[in-house]
Amino acid sequence: MALPATLVVELSALLGDGWRIDDAARDAHGGDDSRRHARPDAVALPRTREQVVALVRACRAHGVPIVARGAGTGTTGAAVPTHGGIAVSFARMDRILAIRPADRCAVVEPGVLNGALQTALAAHGLFWPPDPSSAESCTVGGNLATNAGGPRAVKYGATRDNVLGLVAVTGTGELIRVGGAYTKASAGYDLTHLLVGSEGTLALIVEATLKLAPRPQAQAGLRAFYRDAASAAAAVSRLMAQPVVPAMLEFLDRRSLMLLRRNGSDVPEAGAMLLVEADGSAEALPDILAALGAAAEGEGLLDMDVAPDGAARDRLWAARRALSPALRTIAPGKINEDVVVPVSRIPELVASVEALADAYGLTIVCFGHAGNGNLHVNLLYHPDDADETARAQAALPQVFDLALALGGTLSGEHGIGLSKREFMARAYDAPTLAAMRAVKHAFDPDGILNPGKLLPP
Amino acid sequence: MALPATLVVELSALLGDGWRIDDAARDAHGGDDSRRHARPDAVALPRTREQVVALVRACRAHGVPIVARGAGTGTTGAAVPTHGGIAVSFARMDRILAIRPADRCAVVEPGVLNGALQTALAAHGLFWPPDPSSAESCTVGGNLATNAGGPRAVKYGATRDNVLGLVAVTGTGELIRVGGAYTKASAGYDLTHLLVGSEGTLALIVEATLKLAPRPQAQAGLRAFYRDAASAAAAVSRLMAQPVVPAMLEFLDRRSLMLLRRNGSDVPEAGAMLLVEADGSAEALPDILAALGAAAEGEGLLDMDVAPDGAARDRLWAARRALSPALRTIAPGKINEDVVVPVSRIPELVASVEALADAYGLTIVCFGHAGNGNLHVNLLYHPDDADETARAQAALPQVFDLALALGGTLSGEHGIGLSKREFMARAYDAPTLAAMRAVKHAFDPDGILNPGKLLPP
Repeated sequence: MALPATLVVELSALLGDGWRIDDAARDAHGGDDSRRHARPDAVALPRTREQVVALVRACRAHGVPIVARGAGTGTTGAAVPTHGGIAVSFARMDRILAIRPADRCAVVEPGVLNGALQTALAAHGLFWPPDPSSAESCTVGGNLATNAGGPRAVKYGATRDNVLGLVAVTGTGELIRVGGAYTKASAGYDLTHLLVGSEGTLALIVEATLKLAPRPQAQAGLRAFYRDAASAAAAVSRLMAQPVVPAMLEFLDRRSLMLLRRNGSDVPEAGAMLLVEADGSAEALPDILAALGAAAEGEGLLDMDVAPDGAARDRLWAARRALSPALRTIAPGKINEDVVVPVSRIPELVASVEALADAYGLTIVCFGHAGNGNLHVNLLYHPDDADETARAQAALPQVFDLALALGGTLSGEHGIGLSKREFMARAYDAPTLAAMRAVKHAFDPDGILNPGKLLPP
Repeated sequence: MALPATLVVELSALLGDGWRIDDAARDAHGGDDSRRHARPDAVALPRTREQVVALVRACRAHGVPIVARGAGTGTTGAAVPTHGGIAVSFARMDRILAIRPADRCAVVEPGVLNGALQTALAAHGLFWPPDPSSAESCTVGGNLATNAGGPRAVKYGATRDNVLGLVAVTGTGELIRVGGAYTKASAGYDLTHLLVGSEGTLALIVEATLKLAPRPQAQAGLRAFYRDAASAAAAVSRLMAQPVVPAMLEFLDRRSLMLLRRNGSDVPEAGAMLLVEADGSAEALPDILAALGAAAEGEGLLDMDVAPDGAARDRLWAARRALSPALRTIAPGKINEDVVVPVSRIPELVASVEALADAYGLTIVCFGHAGNGNLHVNLLYHPDDADETARAQAALPQVFDLALALGGTLSGEHGIGLSKREFMARAYDAPTLAAMRAVKHAFDPDGILNPGKLLPP
């Protein structure tokens, strides 16, 4: 679509050098890590919330779509402007407005990088829990849009659990303020947590008050090898049922371990591995580690290595870090989904995915955040092999159906975006989707905010 | 209003002996702990979610209000049917449907008592964190409606933080299902947390999947006396900034301590007291207690008692438990509000409330959940003293204005209901209230669910 000339004049005047219609800017703001791409008609780089309000009102008047974006590290196409319109980058709204150690919170603009925030917080002995693997390059605004997680979520929660308040601009161009620098509230509808994970479809977040946690003094860990996924999953349930919550609790399946061994990692033959992290004070760590080790023990345990300090823990975690690069050595194509199941159903998920891999003649590797039942199911294929590619595409819906049949859901931390929206009707029944559509209409009655995302067609 | 005769016939047939129009039943389902009362036109006691769906659809067809209620222990009038219509009690939907230790969750109907659930969970070494003072007699449904909290919220969160999924009936009589037996999700709008704290104005909850925590093996505590509220509040900030999160962190102001001394409790003269609870494994507790004790130390500390075990801890907590009964010995009238401020602003709140007490010639006692900045401000008065009663009523809006001016909010755990709805327009600006109204309309377009509550007139 071509933008209305009056809108171009208005937004150019509003945004100055933050208004870009050149091809380079449009191309640079059209993609994300899903490898999808669509060119927006223009790019807006606002510096103030007032500019965001004026932008939304102008676009609404002309019925022009608005697609908010952070750093473009999302994996679902949520930031891809498939309906054209204006890509709104928050790269210039990247200030840390306040760090309030006594209130354990920080107030930030959406464009600040997760990693830059962590660096600033470290000086105060604090951190913000969400730790996606893209932490160095992704923005807090993107984390808010997708409800990003990471390994630490098992103890500290994902993004939604670590946001106290928001200032946001709705689809009608109204600035709303919800929540604040406090951790407990029963005062009206909780719009704060509703906006987190809404992928830019309800409002554009222009400020967030983030809940912080004190940095643990020390870390340690252990890795345990099991005969099969079922005995590892039983250990996950035991670990989650005792009072010392692990700081991370990662699962790697048999194929992950085969892959690591093939690439030279120091892991034995086993059916599954758990990586368990402990954090706390230096004095408390030995007891914490002992409690976690006791819970990890049980039927099917083959071997366990204890890393009593941070350096040893880093060595153990090297295998987990080597995994994503190793996947690329098998096949250049990868569909990485992050389904969720109840913790007790992990064995069934893993067994069913193995059966699926056999049935479709595919390599499928499962690993991820076992303490949350949030497993990354990686379907590997060669994009130049049309048949294998088709089999991978055909197996994908089966993975979602498996997770849903086990009482789980489509995504734990990546979100829905474009790539999973057609599966939303499998995850939710018609009345629930109707309620979600009604909420969408409440915030964005004209449907200008990120059309074609999250909700099914 | 008189109920339409066809509706009476329909609901009587639907509900059988769960349909009550006698005065005794109507009177018994018209009040709550706010001492407000209004008689509903009828009382419905459904046994199944299908009955709730049919009830809402029938009421919607006739435009008849529906007011959901648990055990009537709320303090804001949220369950009082001021607009008549049908009081829906969930007393007969009180089953614990499943306890899933391996998934750390329980599935319950809304009418189960919080205390009964805790008893059932104890056998599995688990608990559900919300611990309002009415825990023995309040229902989980009421906890969900108000986002109830309690002292444990500082470590374990309030109700909203401990709910994983809901099944609910909207104002259009549609059954929706959101969330489930998993702790991490990024799959569509988060309606689960939106419904918690919505006080029966968006939907009637018919089933909840609750997040459980492992029962700590042991508990200990300490109490610390400070020169003034400012030095106690500084200690609260220190306690919250170090890695060992206290299991409870309660504050009592100078007047609370005076009152306790006058009633024979063993507390010294001091400007403020903190009660700090530690929980964990028996081996870890000494270190945890040492860390909390070190954080409690600082400028203005007068004295500290350590309770190294559960029994000693219970003795220390006796003073906190004696406080509410003691309040009644001063004056029979009490306005108990539970405002929230950022932790760092507690000293200003306490100092301003003291100034307010002086200015209005009132006794005002402050105590509560300091780790969440959630203080109970008790304005005491004699109801038969018209002038004092008027002064208490006049001082109340000032308390809310103080909390809001300090960046806080109206309520941390009681909710809004009737008693605070007129103050919502002070807490939120017009666009934010408009967004809340739009959400209300999305779930309940005809406004039949608990009209006249939560949102301002």
